[in-house]
Amino acid sequence: MTRRIDSRRDERSNPADQRAVRRHNLSLVLRHIAERGPRSRSTVATETGLNKATVSSLVAELIERGLLSAAGTEYPGAVGRPAQSVRLRSDGALGLGLEVNVDYLSVCAKDLAGRVRHRRAIAFDNRASTPERSFVRLLRLARDALRDVAAQGLVPVGTIVAVPGLVDYASGRLLYAPNLGWTEVPVAELVEDRLGLAGVPVRVENEANLGALAELWEGAGRAYRDFIHVSGEVGVGAGIVLGGRLFRGARGLGGEFGHITIYPEGPICGCGGRGHLEAMAGQDALMRAAGVETSVAGERDASADLAKRAREGDRSVQVALRDAGRLLGIGLSSLANLFDPQAIILGGRFATLAPMMLEEIRAEMGERVIAARWSDCRMLVSELGGEAAVRGAASMAMERVLDDPTTVHVAGRAS
Amino acid sequence: MTRRIDSRRDERSNPADQRAVRRHNLSLVLRHIAERGPRSRSTVATETGLNKATVSSLVAELIERGLLSAAGTEYPGAVGRPAQSVRLRSDGALGLGLEVNVDYLSVCAKDLAGRVRHRRAIAFDNRASTPERSFVRLLRLARDALRDVAAQGLVPVGTIVAVPGLVDYASGRLLYAPNLGWTEVPVAELVEDRLGLAGVPVRVENEANLGALAELWEGAGRAYRDFIHVSGEVGVGAGIVLGGRLFRGARGLGGEFGHITIYPEGPICGCGGRGHLEAMAGQDALMRAAGVETSVAGERDASADLAKRAREGDRSVQVALRDAGRLLGIGLSSLANLFDPQAIILGGRFATLAPMMLEEIRAEMGERVIAARWSDCRMLVSELGGEAAVRGAASMAMERVLDDPTTVHVAGRAS
Repeated sequence: MTRRIDSRRDERSNPADQRAVRRHNLSLVLRHIAERGPRSRSTVATETGLNKATVSSLVAELIERGLLSAAGTEYPGAVGRPAQSVRLRSDGALGLGLEVNVDYLSVCAKDLAGRVRHRRAIAFDNRASTPERSFVRLLRLARDALRDVAAQGLVPVGTIVAVPGLVDYASGRLLYAPNLGWTEVPVAELVEDRLGLAGVPVRVENEANLGALAELWEGAGRAYRDFIHVSGEVGVGAGIVLGGRLFRGARGLGGEFGHITIYPEGPICGCGGRGHLEAMAGQDALMRAAGVETSVAGERDASADLAKRAREGDRSVQVALRDAGRLLGIGLSSLANLFDPQAIILGGRFATLAPMMLEEIRAEMGERVIAARWSDCRMLVSELGGEAAVRGAASMAMERVLDDPTTVHVAGRAS
Repeated sequence: MTRRIDSRRDERSNPADQRAVRRHNLSLVLRHIAERGPRSRSTVATETGLNKATVSSLVAELIERGLLSAAGTEYPGAVGRPAQSVRLRSDGALGLGLEVNVDYLSVCAKDLAGRVRHRRAIAFDNRASTPERSFVRLLRLARDALRDVAAQGLVPVGTIVAVPGLVDYASGRLLYAPNLGWTEVPVAELVEDRLGLAGVPVRVENEANLGALAELWEGAGRAYRDFIHVSGEVGVGAGIVLGGRLFRGARGLGGEFGHITIYPEGPICGCGGRGHLEAMAGQDALMRAAGVETSVAGERDASADLAKRAREGDRSVQVALRDAGRLLGIGLSSLANLFDPQAIILGGRFATLAPMMLEEIRAEMGERVIAARWSDCRMLVSELGGEAAVRGAASMAMERVLDDPTTVHVAGRAS
């Protein structure tokens, strides 16, 4: 029964802690204005409980860092004097999201208010490519995006790269992407070196995790604190949100829902395992089962096409979708038995296909989830679909600024 | 992107917070002495950073509550005066753990230092029983235990009841125990009413969760912060420890590892699902596969008997165990893919059978865990075996006292 003893000390006088308090308050004020809209310093002071002099000093620093700007005058009603409002700078900081997935490349840029300022996706068969070639093409998209947003007056302050595989977070490497056959790709380094944005941090994150965060921040997950976002592409991934926070597994390499075993003697998976969910219900498996040719260069609309054919009465497509729904339902039952989430969100291409799969999913879960009677799990369909990951990437870049505005350097000073 | 705004206030002057600080410090001192052994007030003050007057007052209260007692004299070396030591009272507070499992009943009582002061388990076929009859028998064990520990001068201060099923924590009800066919059993109420310990709180917890906590506190999990304890009885359960804390699923009904699907068309499970792990690799399934008669009234040694027969060369038992290892390995691979734990501990009857199953488990995990190459998961065998849950129950009752010593009332005063 050994436990660490936490000794209590008053840490207020420590300069490092004073800086932490300042950072916290900068974040508090910036988020407050991001969420509530333009308002005066004294309104911010009243609403946050900070004193007015502190708010003025914080706002001055946020203006200097290019995050806030003046926004006309606020009239507080009969009593009190009109005061100058501040608002988020619409020509200020920008978060850049990039995504390499199995059969497409994608970019999304968002401002501090969470508005998309640039967005593009292209079909690209990364399986037939090398990391080198894929990143050359991705960075071309990124540079186009940067030119576009520069013309809108925006300055990138953070970049997140979404990848379909295991990530080493400390080094920003993609360790393993089974559907691409890539291992040990130094993604952060590649992007940092070639994009040439000095002082703009580049981080790498699993695409399913980013999809879940996008759902939490702006999608079907907004109303929940505990949910699982399942993204169906060629691979199948899960982003698990517990208590409003992303759960990446105890050591960062968990959440690999696509690699849970559904049929132990099933088909070989891209990772070498057998009968894994993504080998049986991922897009390739689904196309094969439907008797549709798996075309090579990135069919961005393969799922829309499948859905259309099913609606038009194509029997083999209908059967394949129902079967995929059954397999997915088996996997989701195991997930629900382990995590007991409030909701499961079907995302990625599953969002398009959900109407044809939901009945089977519900039937399996009704039969296989032991707590179903006491703990109803809502089944939701993503509003963001295949855009979730790259939107989440752009948002995560901005979230880092909202969490710590000091990561944005004062204009004109190099980092 | 909506987030709650936390306004900062200085809460020190609030009397409720002063009480919280006092409780925290009482816990700090009590844990310090529990972990480091007898020592003087001034040593405690030096080691914890609390001031000496505060420590004296805290120690006085802990003595009054019957948790500490005087313990001879401490000689601080050449300089300084000898001082009176205090230590945990060995005739003080007691945690009572009770367990109802599928084929046995069990009791364990521990003192504050974590020593077992009473322990008993009996074979009892709860499947052939009603909750009423089972609890009558369990409470007879509990009363025997209380008589025994009373003779040792110990006073119960908390009771935890381990059950093999879904628990409603707020009400202390067992919602559903599939292997017993019991639903909605008001366990806390039953034990509270009939054990007649006024003011001693009764709480209910899933047995697999308590097994995991026992491993964390005194077993193979001591060296880890992120591990999964798999307990194999008639049912199969998992206790999931993340960051040194128990994870019960987002809403309290997760961790149901025994009910993940291994073969979708497999045998019907006690819960009504198909091909669930416990229906295929739990004790009953194992006995059937080995061609051993599943005897009725609680074979406490069924697993020891199986292990013996396998060692003696019984082919059908060997094959059954290897097959169970394979099934368990398939399930554990899915678990590792989702949670990425540092270690998996095989507990309950799996602890006895592990030597005959480990090879198959390792083979399956090597093939099916996608991050195996980057994130090695240790396979450990429980040292506590089938005793883990009831030991964990007794410990949890004491942990609650160590966390908040004010839950123990001053001797002589009713609650």
